[in-house]
Amino acid sequence: LTVVPAIEAATALIDRARQGDRRALARALTIVEQGGEAAQAVGRQAARHAGHAHIVGITGAPGAGKSTLTGRLVEQRRLRGDRVAVLAIDPSSPFSGGAILGDRVRMQAHATDEGAFIRSMATRGHLGGLTLATPQAVRVLDAAGYPWVVVETVGVGQVEVDIAGAADTTVVVVNPGWGDAVQANKAGLLEVADIFVINKADRDGAESTRTDLEQMLAMTAIAEDGWIPPVVMTVSTTGQDVEQLWQAVDEHRAHCARTGVLEDRRRRRVETEMRSIFVRRLEQIAAEGTRENGWQSLVAAVARGALDPYTAVERFVDLLGLQP
Amino acid sequence: LTVVPAIEAATALIDRARQGDRRALARALTIVEQGGEAAQAVGRQAARHAGHAHIVGITGAPGAGKSTLTGRLVEQRRLRGDRVAVLAIDPSSPFSGGAILGDRVRMQAHATDEGAFIRSMATRGHLGGLTLATPQAVRVLDAAGYPWVVVETVGVGQVEVDIAGAADTTVVVVNPGWGDAVQANKAGLLEVADIFVINKADRDGAESTRTDLEQMLAMTAIAEDGWIPPVVMTVSTTGQDVEQLWQAVDEHRAHCARTGVLEDRRRRRVETEMRSIFVRRLEQIAAEGTRENGWQSLVAAVARGALDPYTAVERFVDLLGLQP
Repeated sequence: LTVVPAIEAATALIDRARQGDRRALARALTIVEQGGEAAQAVGRQAARHAGHAHIVGITGAPGAGKSTLTGRLVEQRRLRGDRVAVLAIDPSSPFSGGAILGDRVRMQAHATDEGAFIRSMATRGHLGGLTLATPQAVRVLDAAGYPWVVVETVGVGQVEVDIAGAADTTVVVVNPGWGDAVQANKAGLLEVADIFVINKADRDGAESTRTDLEQMLAMTAIAEDGWIPPVVMTVSTTGQDVEQLWQAVDEHRAHCARTGVLEDRRRRRVETEMRSIFVRRLEQIAAEGTRENGWQSLVAAVARGALDPYTAVERFVDLLGLQP
Repeated sequence: LTVVPAIEAATALIDRARQGDRRALARALTIVEQGGEAAQAVGRQAARHAGHAHIVGITGAPGAGKSTLTGRLVEQRRLRGDRVAVLAIDPSSPFSGGAILGDRVRMQAHATDEGAFIRSMATRGHLGGLTLATPQAVRVLDAAGYPWVVVETVGVGQVEVDIAGAADTTVVVVNPGWGDAVQANKAGLLEVADIFVINKADRDGAESTRTDLEQMLAMTAIAEDGWIPPVVMTVSTTGQDVEQLWQAVDEHRAHCARTGVLEDRRRRRVETEMRSIFVRRLEQIAAEGTRENGWQSLVAAVARGALDPYTAVERFVDLLGLQP
């Protein structure tokens, strides 16, 4: 009985967000972050209006300067008049409440700019939740009419790499210095990169890091679509060469549109999201299932040594008729 | 058709392990670690002979001295003539291939002792696998007749804490120093602790760490069974007061047997394992399910914006008849 008001509320919220109401947008994102039925109603409503934004993933090790770079990206794109939304999933990001005050202050400058919207998402404790919440949040920002959605994640775990790799264009940020490119490779970031950024390029070793990256790329098979990830050198603290990064993003976007890769990626992204939802749904079915009596008597049988747990679970699967 | 030889092989392997064949035991554990049908056959065979060991979980932050302490525990218990098996799941443990050569050498001393069996399990990349493999490995060591099975895990993630908390007696190791007890609390270790060890107790701050722990414990509700976790101070490098830790373990064991808690715990442990198996089984069913055509046309519908992903998944659940 609470479903109808939830749907009505979601419709009103997304409508208001689409009309430029920032508080409604913030509220919709909070609902999405919290998960559950209300989140699904908001996501469902957003889905009707989404599909127009280009999603740029920014990822890399903690301390690579991703947040400052993201701030500069917003700045640059705003100069061209485009609206930009940022979703920060990096727990060390100043947007999500960590790190440097200077960055935070600069980001707050954007907070008074109607064309920029910056939002952090909490990761603490529930990465599984993040896997579900991130695509919904992107969908809401997309529906709200932002043509650019920048998703910033720290590329340390599989979940974060997956989230970054689900973008239309994935930017991997490394720093000059021995082994940084190698670390990025180990973390699985090389495979998801469409563009490399060597940030803090005014430091020693920037050129050798570029060589490292290019050598590692040469050992990788060229993508089916023929795109070779360019390497861009930036100094995000001064904003140096950040416009070249946007140029690379624009080129990648044009390339993807031309080759049909964009559609493939979006389809793959949808499928990945649906798989996550499906697994979560199966866990729910499992939790509901184990409330039945048959479960407890099987547990008892295993506990007293009359049955091994695998045989017991198989009997339970049969009992529920789950084997399709 | 390969199932029958697998069962025969598993039967032979467990029989030989029960007769004291260490190579057969090592082989059985490798099979269990690798997962799959052979692992289930070995676990099933082990289940027939298991249920006699007392399982001691040792957990705590990396560097707390868990491995050295575990080595000392083995040493002490061997002096009493009891056989002891160790399963090390800490990736930084010398048993599992990290850390200090000195420890590794000391552990190898036990390797020539027929009454001690030490085994590490790989965690890299598949924690899910570990959730399934650990109880099976414990079952094999139990079946092989070790009255004491010590499971060492680094208490950093939920999976590790869950594994430690599945023991009959869980020992949480902290070090002297500001905030160490607080960190253990944050990691969820306080709730699973039956015994606290302040290891490296010869360092500054041991007494204040004891006070911290006792204050935090005072704020926690006393367990239904009335057990109040004692705090033991040890210096594992010298072996100081390690016999007091065994004494605490013996007392906890006697308490559990007296109050019936041991049976409850074992039942809960079986149920947790069965839930993991059940979820994994559902994921398999899901993976098989998504190979059907219905899945791809739902993905396409979501990709073109005709359907939202949650509604699509719900239709798929209906399609497979998975809703019990």
